[in-house]
Amino acid sequence: MNYLLVLKLIGFVLKTESALMLLPLIVSIILRSGDSMYFIYTIVPLYIIGHCLNKIKPQKTAFRSREGFVTVSLSWIVLSICGAIPFYISGYFVSYIDCFFETVSGFTTTGSTILTNVETVSKGLLFWRSLTHWIGGMGVLVFILAIMPNLDGSTVQLLRAESPGPTPGKFVPRIKETAKILYMIYFCMTLIETILLLISGLPLYDSLITAMGTAGTGGFSNMNLSIGAYNNVSAEVITTVFMLLFGVNFSIYYLILKKQVGLVKENEELKLYIFIVAASMLLIAVNIMPLCGGSFINSLRQSSFQVASIVTTTGYSTADFDLWPTFSKAILMCLMLVGACAGSTGGGIKMSRLLILLKAAKREISAIIHPRRIQTVKMENSTLEDRTLVNVLVFISLYMFIIFAAVLLVSLDGFDFETTISSVIATISNIGPGFSLVGPMGNFAMFSPFSKLVLSFCMLAGRLELFPMLVLFSPTIWKKKSF
Amino acid sequence: MNYLLVLKLIGFVLKTESALMLLPLIVSIILRSGDSMYFIYTIVPLYIIGHCLNKIKPQKTAFRSREGFVTVSLSWIVLSICGAIPFYISGYFVSYIDCFFETVSGFTTTGSTILTNVETVSKGLLFWRSLTHWIGGMGVLVFILAIMPNLDGSTVQLLRAESPGPTPGKFVPRIKETAKILYMIYFCMTLIETILLLISGLPLYDSLITAMGTAGTGGFSNMNLSIGAYNNVSAEVITTVFMLLFGVNFSIYYLILKKQVGLVKENEELKLYIFIVAASMLLIAVNIMPLCGGSFINSLRQSSFQVASIVTTTGYSTADFDLWPTFSKAILMCLMLVGACAGSTGGGIKMSRLLILLKAAKREISAIIHPRRIQTVKMENSTLEDRTLVNVLVFISLYMFIIFAAVLLVSLDGFDFETTISSVIATISNIGPGFSLVGPMGNFAMFSPFSKLVLSFCMLAGRLELFPMLVLFSPTIWKKKSF
Repeated sequence: MNYLLVLKLIGFVLKTESALMLLPLIVSIILRSGDSMYFIYTIVPLYIIGHCLNKIKPQKTAFRSREGFVTVSLSWIVLSICGAIPFYISGYFVSYIDCFFETVSGFTTTGSTILTNVETVSKGLLFWRSLTHWIGGMGVLVFILAIMPNLDGSTVQLLRAESPGPTPGKFVPRIKETAKILYMIYFCMTLIETILLLISGLPLYDSLITAMGTAGTGGFSNMNLSIGAYNNVSAEVITTVFMLLFGVNFSIYYLILKKQVGLVKENEELKLYIFIVAASMLLIAVNIMPLCGGSFINSLRQSSFQVASIVTTTGYSTADFDLWPTFSKAILMCLMLVGACAGSTGGGIKMSRLLILLKAAKREISAIIHPRRIQTVKMENSTLEDRTLVNVLVFISLYMFIIFAAVLLVSLDGFDFETTISSVIATISNIGPGFSLVGPMGNFAMFSPFSKLVLSFCMLAGRLELFPMLVLFSPTIWKKKSF
Repeated sequence: MNYLLVLKLIGFVLKTESALMLLPLIVSIILRSGDSMYFIYTIVPLYIIGHCLNKIKPQKTAFRSREGFVTVSLSWIVLSICGAIPFYISGYFVSYIDCFFETVSGFTTTGSTILTNVETVSKGLLFWRSLTHWIGGMGVLVFILAIMPNLDGSTVQLLRAESPGPTPGKFVPRIKETAKILYMIYFCMTLIETILLLISGLPLYDSLITAMGTAGTGGFSNMNLSIGAYNNVSAEVITTVFMLLFGVNFSIYYLILKKQVGLVKENEELKLYIFIVAASMLLIAVNIMPLCGGSFINSLRQSSFQVASIVTTTGYSTADFDLWPTFSKAILMCLMLVGACAGSTGGGIKMSRLLILLKAAKREISAIIHPRRIQTVKMENSTLEDRTLVNVLVFISLYMFIIFAAVLLVSLDGFDFETTISSVIATISNIGPGFSLVGPMGNFAMFSPFSKLVLSFCMLAGRLELFPMLVLFSPTIWKKKSF
């Protein structure tokens, strides 16, 4: 492990974070929300430490896969530790672990909260809280790559570690250019949503908060009742549509920009996504009709919003879906696990992996019927090697394994089964709310500090797609002299 | 698909079932339990139909993989449909679906019951109910193979489909001999347990019922309070030890018979099994100590019994573990999913698959650290090809997928989350009781007929290790002219 190189990059990450904190500082000054000092007290030391670390000149600058993974996972942890400082100074939170949990929840675009009454928190802090969603959605390192001076080979390794879906490789060889294009699409879509929300009647501040939460598929709101607080149909529809758009693989937008619509139409993951979303919306709408006064339009409005919010792993709510029938809740739980498309800002196992599992399962059955025929698994017209399949299937199995391991640890707190299991699923899939005590009207405040750390680990593991966090547990990676 | 050949074999299965029903008939006559006629009314038509079907002379006798899988899955379904007849005639059950559920639960060694008061049911019927465990434990087709005249290649294909774990291939080339040896070990171990239970003070009838339930890792008892009803420490210890023994891969006993103890000591699955069992027993014992009056001996007695019962997927109980703390219940839930060793009579994902998952995950992490090094996954000193890994990992992922699909369907009944999820896990892993309404003091009577069929499917899918049941859904397998 090239420690100095990793430290140098983390220095750059800290400098970037201190620069990003200028935004909530500006908001705080404009709105006179009285929380400017919390940011100033954080920005100054953060910049100095970051600057010093960034001055390190490592002897070797070769950037390998392991440095990429460790840099990414440590960066996210350090970002969260430092991003929590303004929250801690403010005194709204009981302990530093609560602030850390809230910041991890922000950067990982989870949206699970410790706060029991969001509306009492000052506006600068809430802006920072939602900004972490926006930064985390696209990936912190991707953002830095777009602005950072080149380091030998670092670009590829960092991007591979931070967004390991089957996507980035497909893009143009000039990865830096790609990162810029991706962030540009992301920025423009957020801007459009903000403007539309403004037109629908939301105040500018609320529009910005909602749009950042949608873009990152995060789910932090400045209202206790989330989007339901506005009781504004247009705003709900706009948010529904944009949540679904941010759950799509961004390479689709890239292809549209390049006018390769033919490739978009053939995209199997997109088809599965549309099918699952539509089916879930309809089934839940029928199931909850009695709760909506028998009006199908009303129940479809609620189910559409909630399905879009859960499948994209955003976590906004317009209704207390914890009160819905078991069937609707079971559908939502399955959507929580599957999550959005690969290469989107959403979390979960991802539609593409589900598709690969189904195809691999079909081949196993086909191999029973035709044992002598050589059969391959194809996706988007290219054959997936068995080695690739092993990687995807290990991911899915390991995802479930980590869920059960975390449930064991969190169950030590002694809350009911539904709370325990759904809190783990809601964090590892970066959803936000779960069911029962952590439902849309609940929060995560009652967990023990230990459980909060376990759930923070789940959020990070989910957002970084497991391996960058798991690599940290390998003893060999910490050896200085590596072979 | 060679329909005639499959029908011929199913005829043999029916004849065998009618012969096996002579045993409860004899018990009924000896005990004068008044249920002899239920068996006579079933045995006669079953034998006649079976005999006629078995007389079929198919033109082609080539027995391929697909015929093997379909014969196995259809045999289990037909066995359950016909095995349910005495229950239906007796009038103890409300509907035929209830009888079918109970028989599937018996043959698949699940032990989930519809009955609210077992002790009112006549003794001949209860003997048949427990005998289905004993037959199902080792595999119906394995039993038939041991006694059946040879058919071209049928032996290998049937054995492959019925016990698809990584084991059978390892055995001697003379598979028929192996089947006999396996059944001999199985019979002797059951006999020894029966004798020991008799010595401990249980009546002969109860000893037989308990031993058959243990051997098959089933869990049906003739008492409402299960093994707890006897309040007999010796009987509990004997049952605990034998449950654990029947959860071990039977090839281990084969190796011991062959005096190859060195190979036994190297068995990685056995080591993992012992470790997980010991750790779970200790953790639960500490966790439930306050419920056992602070006595560690008392809590260890309860936890040992329950861990052995759940990890081997038997499902006997000595305490209402549904009242235990969430942590203990979470451990039990994880054990339910993992299950016993491959090649044992137990269900679940199996220890060996968990081991392979962990090894494959370790390789993925290692591949990040050393991207250029070629790395293999080894198990018991032999390298596992990627194609084999894909099969194992598809199994694990698909197992979870089927659980969630079944939860969706069962959730239509509207019971609470804990009941819904645990009823599916308890059936697919062939455990028996789950938590909440289907806990050790509950039963499965309240589910809708549709849910009972879904749960019956889960039991069969779990017992036959998914693929034989899934193959039935493939349209190509039903084509008469196959290519």
